[in-house]
Amino acid sequence: MQSLEKRITEEGIVLPGGILKVGSFLNHQLDPQLFHEMALEFHKAFGDLAVTKILTIEASGIGIASITGLVFGCKVLFAKKSRTANLSGEFYTQEVTSYTHGNSRQIIVERQFLNADDRVLVIDDFLANGAATDGLIGICSQAKAHVVGVGIAIEKAFQPGGESLRKRGIKLLSLARIESMDAEKGIVFCKD
Amino acid sequence: MQSLEKRITEEGIVLPGGILKVGSFLNHQLDPQLFHEMALEFHKAFGDLAVTKILTIEASGIGIASITGLVFGCKVLFAKKSRTANLSGEFYTQEVTSYTHGNSRQIIVERQFLNADDRVLVIDDFLANGAATDGLIGICSQAKAHVVGVGIAIEKAFQPGGESLRKRGIKLLSLARIESMDAEKGIVFCKD
Repeated sequence: MQSLEKRITEEGIVLPGGILKVGSFLNHQLDPQLFHEMALEFHKAFGDLAVTKILTIEASGIGIASITGLVFGCKVLFAKKSRTANLSGEFYTQEVTSYTHGNSRQIIVERQFLNADDRVLVIDDFLANGAATDGLIGICSQAKAHVVGVGIAIEKAFQPGGESLRKRGIKLLSLARIESMDAEKGIVFCKD
Repeated sequence: MQSLEKRITEEGIVLPGGILKVGSFLNHQLDPQLFHEMALEFHKAFGDLAVTKILTIEASGIGIASITGLVFGCKVLFAKKSRTANLSGEFYTQEVTSYTHGNSRQIIVERQFLNADDRVLVIDDFLANGAATDGLIGICSQAKAHVVGVGIAIEKAFQPGGESLRKRGIKLLSLARIESMDAEKGIVFCKD
């Protein structure tokens, strides 16, 4: 998606440790107009697949997922990273290991909001090693919900998450795919 | 807002400890179509006030704020509850005590995303004691940004947050105002 690649090129900052900072439009400050364009791209790819629910993970997936849900006309569900006082009932939980942060945590979804009738589009801001995405797919497996596909804003294509999803036959649309990035050499996108 | 009050009445569950569970449409599962209706109400109230930025707090404010930003045509900024690896630069921080989580923590906003030229609409899902809202207003004060108003989905009018904002002359629109709630007697809305 050209407008997204342009924003990444103009505003993205590569930090040490393979971190891409896009806080000016994607995950701290948010650009809802850009998210709407992204949602329309997701709808082109997944709009015919009878999606009943968008699933994402807090916090930075929520903005994109909400506007995608508005375009799809379906509800959005976000997995929580901690158990809050306003959660009750039965849960699906899944262990997610963050390679970047070097820690592991449970993500949580209330059972009543996801079931075997659901056709789920998983949405997230980043796909790198795929831990968060795999965690969300694992939640869907527990619920016996069907994952129709995965929609990602930025895939770090030099990390194995995207390839792993494709090999497993999961339909994946990443709106920007980064081939390589380096604080000095800048950001290079995949040409496919 | 009638459609919101209807949803609260039909789907809301009052839990012990004064907690209203509205996870089916507001803060776990999200209803983007309802959020769009809410955003239009916020736009009726604040649309003439030259808003340049929507400010909210992660996680459950982000969905409403994103769709409100889409309607207003401006960017959205969410205060973070923890310092993540992709934050850098200078910050505004503010101490916030959470009623739901039963703890106190710093909320964080990068300085570069909020400044004296900004006219800010603060958006959140709940207003009870006003701790989160006051924290966001405090962040705006630090940035010398002008708070044009506060837009809330559900105000617990039996707690002091809303009254405190009104007394300080801050324009507040709460789309549903709960006068009282009780697990047995149910939820009663303010009639004004």
